[in-house]
Amino acid sequence: MFEGKVKADVLREVVDVVSTLVDEAKFNVGKDSVTVKAVDPAHVAMVDLTLDRGAFEAYKADEGELGIDMDKMKEILRLAKAGETIAMRHDEDKNRLVVTVGNTTRRMALVDTAGMSDPKVPSLNLPAKVVVRTDELRQAIRASESISDHIALKASPEGFEVVSEGDTDNVSHMVPKDLLEEIQAKEAVRSLFPLDYFSNMVKAISSAPNVTLYLGSDYPVKMEFKIAGGKGEVKFLLAPRIESDG
Amino acid sequence: MFEGKVKADVLREVVDVVSTLVDEAKFNVGKDSVTVKAVDPAHVAMVDLTLDRGAFEAYKADEGELGIDMDKMKEILRLAKAGETIAMRHDEDKNRLVVTVGNTTRRMALVDTAGMSDPKVPSLNLPAKVVVRTDELRQAIRASESISDHIALKASPEGFEVVSEGDTDNVSHMVPKDLLEEIQAKEAVRSLFPLDYFSNMVKAISSAPNVTLYLGSDYPVKMEFKIAGGKGEVKFLLAPRIESDG
Amino acid sequence: MFEGKVKADVLREVVDVVSTLVDEAKFNVGKDSVTVKAVDPAHVAMVDLTLDRGAFEAYKADEGELGIDMDKMKEILRLAKAGETIAMRHDEDKNRLVVTVGNTTRRMALVDTAGMSDPKVPSLNLPAKVVVRTDELRQAIRASESISDHIALKASPEGFEVVSEGDTDNVSHMVPKDLLEEIQAKEAVRSLFPLDYFSNMVKAISSAPNVTLYLGSDYPVKMEFKIAGGKGEVKFLLAPRIESDG
Repeated sequence: MFEGKVKADVLREVVDVVSTLVDEAKFNVGKDSVTVKAVDPAHVAMVDLTLDRGAFEAYKADEGELGIDMDKMKEILRLAKAGETIAMRHDEDKNRLVVTVGNTTRRMALVDTAGMSDPKVPSLNLPAKVVVRTDELRQAIRASESISDHIALKASPEGFEVVSEGDTDNVSHMVPKDLLEEIQAKEAVRSLFPLDYFSNMVKAISSAPNVTLYLGSDYPVKMEFKIAGGKGEVKFLLAPRIESDG
Repeated sequence: MFEGKVKADVLREVVDVVSTLVDEAKFNVGKDSVTVKAVDPAHVAMVDLTLDRGAFEAYKADEGELGIDMDKMKEILRLAKAGETIAMRHDEDKNRLVVTVGNTTRRMALVDTAGMSDPKVPSLNLPAKVVVRTDELRQAIRASESISDHIALKASPEGFEVVSEGDTDNVSHMVPKDLLEEIQAKEAVRSLFPLDYFSNMVKAISSAPNVTLYLGSDYPVKMEFKIAGGKGEVKFLLAPRIESDG
Repeated sequence: MFEGKVKADVLREVVDVVSTLVDEAKFNVGKDSVTVKAVDPAHVAMVDLTLDRGAFEAYKADEGELGIDMDKMKEILRLAKAGETIAMRHDEDKNRLVVTVGNTTRRMALVDTAGMSDPKVPSLNLPAKVVVRTDELRQAIRASESISDHIALKASPEGFEVVSEGDTDNVSHMVPKDLLEEIQAKEAVRSLFPLDYFSNMVKAISSAPNVTLYLGSDYPVKMEFKIAGGKGEVKFLLAPRIESDG
């Protein structure tokens, strides 16, 4: 069984994060938290999200799983006013999620989770760590958009840099170490990523002021940030694109 | 003859209501009021609008009729700033409407009203009456949009409900009787309507906080609301869609 | 050499004006000012822009010319926050413009100026002069947009008028002389212009409250306005369209 009440803003953060990679996802509900692990259809990126029961206004659940369509959740979120609470209840007889906002109740068919994988989060040993303001990432992405469809993320003892190289122009967004919240990088590392994936991941961050990035050279990037005012956490993992020459 | 001055906001309400059903309409001007009666081209809906002379800043008219193109009126309304007054005058020699906003004057050819019918508003004996906040109707429509292209309007001693049934999901927006301004319904009634028509009618309500609905079972709905701060009134009539089974 | 710092708002005014007529332009930098002269590809309109060194926060330049792509400058301007300063430097070795906003640096290939002409501003003897509020021009253009793709600009001892004649409707925007900042017109003059050009020129005016128009009969219009809080000036010239009859 599952029954919960949650602020629309918290649910919106969860839906924004998950829908960045998949249209439908398996939500694992448990006594203490809800978790979602999902890999995008192209197997380029992974999300690992945890929402503590404390992020809910009310929460009651046994172990179970719910297959949820992200577009339907977005439709419901569009009905909610600022600060409004959304109530959810699993109707097990009809395998429906019953979602209520104000006077509106939607009975929503759940998605079959049989075909959904349980991705394992790989353990990576990434040598560099950067804690950067989300705004800096957004600005770096905006600056790169017209230049190339790839960006390089770089960390060094001097700071964190996002670089985009085009045919005629290049853009560098350099955050020197004294403008970072934290940096650990003994030597310079650099990996190249598809801009669209990285951009969508950063756009999914709605409230966290800072993001933690773990980086290596030609290695995946791990991106961590808080949701629900610290009562939940997201880990994104994005595969690198190997550069043909330098 | 016809000569009048009217606040842009009042004219905008009138144009929004009439253009919901028709592109061109016959405005009947009289000593005490302007009225418009029109049926949409598919003969599914009817509007019956009255604007008292008191809704105008200045008003002088003999009996007459003006065929007006709604798109042209919208263009003029886009020129008006908040609170601005629009002056209108019928130039009978050239059969033009001369409309002035600020320093701008548009001389607008009138539409031939010869082919425009004078629809008779049918007298209906509708057993249920509901006075509901416009916001509730808007929310019910938004919730229904992705579910189906029809909605059912229901009234019962318990309250007023808007229901939309899709293939997998359904949505109910229930306003219990204590959240309604007024309800008269001895027994339960229910009629099904095309969502697009009903939605456009509700979108045409710009200032009225409440709407009065008259309902029956498999009967048209009559929708009444005030415009121009009470100095005008709109009656919409919308035909039901008969459900094949239940 | 060229090195300068300028408020984003000032650079935006310059880019908006120049990009109205051309995608790429030759910026002539000198000790005391930057100037741009350009003719649109259809040879219908000309711009002559001067920005004094005092419009910059910092400025250092020898005589030289920079071929600049307007779209790239717009992309950089989108990165700037209100009040932010943009630094520019000509990297002569690589023939690049290095533009910095906040932590973002774009190295931008310059455009070859060899093929760009140096248009001569014709000397015209235009009998009428009108100084009109920019808002009045904007309103006149909005009112004309649905009527025709041409507008007539008229000046007479009574005032300044913008007229648009359609098949069935016409629009007049008349600014009587007491609502003008200044008017000099011994007799009535009238010229017809393509609406799209005139509209784009007026849209390029972002801060000047007034515009000076020099007019004749079937003659080009000259439009002058200030940019950069008076530390720069724009002259637009637009060819008339000769009316076949009257």
